Amino acid sequence: MIHALSGGVGGAKLAVGLAALLSPPELTVVVNTADDFDYLGLHIMPDLDSVLYALAGLNDTERGWGRAGESWVCKDTVTSLGVDNWFALGDKDLAIHILRTEWLRQGLSASQVAAELTGRLGIAHAVLPMSDEPVSTVVLSEGQRIAFQEYFVRLQCRPRADGFEFAGMETAKPQAHWMAEMTSADMQGVVICPSNPYVSVEPILALPGVKDALKRQPVVAVSPIIGGRAIKGPAAKMMAELGHEISPLGVARCYQGLLDGMVIDIEDAALAPQLRDLGLQVTVTQTLMKSRKDSVQLARETLDLLARCRGAS
Amino acid sequence: MIHALSGGVGGAKLAVGLAALLSPPELTVVVNTADDFDYLGLHIMPDLDSVLYALAGLNDTERGWGRAGESWVCKDTVTSLGVDNWFALGDKDLAIHILRTEWLRQGLSASQVAAELTGRLGIAHAVLPMSDEPVSTVVLSEGQRIAFQEYFVRLQCRPRADGFEFAGMETAKPQAHWMAEMTSADMQGVVICPSNPYVSVEPILALPGVKDALKRQPVVAVSPIIGGRAIKGPAAKMMAELGHEISPLGVARCYQGLLDGMVIDIEDAALAPQLRDLGLQVTVTQTLMKSRKDSVQLARETLDLLARCRGAS
Repeated sequence: MIHALSGGVGGAKLAVGLAALLSPPELTVVVNTADDFDYLGLHIMPDLDSVLYALAGLNDTERGWGRAGESWVCKDTVTSLGVDNWFALGDKDLAIHILRTEWLRQGLSASQVAAELTGRLGIAHAVLPMSDEPVSTVVLSEGQRIAFQEYFVRLQCRPRADGFEFAGMETAKPQAHWMAEMTSADMQGVVICPSNPYVSVEPILALPGVKDALKRQPVVAVSPIIGGRAIKGPAAKMMAELGHEISPLGVARCYQGLLDGMVIDIEDAALAPQLRDLGLQVTVTQTLMKSRKDSVQLARETLDLLARCRGAS
Repeated sequence: MIHALSGGVGGAKLAVGLAALLSPPELTVVVNTADDFDYLGLHIMPDLDSVLYALAGLNDTERGWGRAGESWVCKDTVTSLGVDNWFALGDKDLAIHILRTEWLRQGLSASQVAAELTGRLGIAHAVLPMSDEPVSTVVLSEGQRIAFQEYFVRLQCRPRADGFEFAGMETAKPQAHWMAEMTSADMQGVVICPSNPYVSVEPILALPGVKDALKRQPVVAVSPIIGGRAIKGPAAKMMAELGHEISPLGVARCYQGLLDGMVIDIEDAALAPQLRDLGLQVTVTQTLMKSRKDSVQLARETLDLLARCRGAS
């Protein structure tokens, strides 16, 4: 039993590779929900949907987010009505948001809704929201508190990130099934997907009890930073603003005390000795996933590294 | 100041003609809301939307309902997820439903939402929901109680209608602005549009105080029945099931005690003497509205009849 901790698009790509190699009972994907928000009365779970679309083979690989063959008739109509329409809701995407919002309103938990959606999308592997309780990332910027999607979509990550808060974290609990698995004898380790360390992975890790549980497991991370750049999103910009090194080393320091191994890109091969000095096992390989084949190859190397860490521990 | 009482598509066609002839301060369209319902968490107001789309020139004149150039991507996606999707939500239509549901959730009244939508759709005439309180038509059928949209859309009007109930009518109030106008010295009369007498017009009339107010005004109705058939919808079938005559005479009897005049189709010219025997002024003309020109012509004849009734009273 392997757990993959994932944010949105980048993590979803590795999840596709892991799902190709592991049978449904062998893999659980735990997804960040701190990006979730309500928009026009609809409950949007961007990271969860990215993982679901990728696992169902419905994701748009060219645009890099959302669904393939998406159309924007509803969004354009909202715009034509003069409503400030900063979050792009595709017509296909809307179907998920409408059903999820309705099911939550009827009393289903986020996990139950995720299970409904995976089932209906033909996904056999478990995809769990990190928590059934709401947690919301707030970006702290020059004395202001900016809701994450506001920062991410409307402001296109322009404000300087001085730090983050996860509203609701005090009362949130890790998803029950995930935590039960974490303490099971079948657990073989945890993969931290190449997602943003601050706003995608940290909310998962910050849930009460998670770090303690992870310390009892082999944990490997795939670096989301290649050659000083983030493959997608504001991870590198955030690292700079927070005064962290924009490299796999900076990423490894985010996961300090939890990590047993790290997968880094060939471009960063020179950093392998420093990572090993931190006590990590290191795999150097191609980490950029441009195709399903790349995802499967990277997943294979990640699982190999995890097996090595398990053997060493 | 003229009031038009309207259901959905048929009434909307006459409203277009009336709006072409009367300036915004001269016309208020009052629309049935007893068909309104919640579907997948969205608040749908079918009659109001039919009137709005027609007045904004956005209605689909070929299909006869909904918006022109509509697409069905979201609906097809919901269906693909295995959800019983009996109510056809178009992608453009959805924009209205999403915004309305959100505005209602924020605390706006149905009237305020209607005003938002008319403004944003560029409609200058007032379109008022009959009430800001919910009223829901229930079809009584062989001992069963069927919600109206269930009967109308899902069951395609197949069950026998033994009668109707308007749940919520006891506590609903007529829309405030409408009632204030009704007692103003500027009122010149009321037009009952060619809508279903039982499920479109009767809910409007059944609101407390409305019939009393109408008795103090000249009132003319345009028959929705031509040659023993309803132009659209189940009006003729309902008349048969309720044991009423399927003719303008049967319609006139629905509005007994309120009506001063009636516009009937040339096909029904032979009934004019019987309607006059009921004390009504009668206009015989082409009542089928196939084009905007037809709507304007019928509106003109209806307003002429109303003026004659006003002169006679």
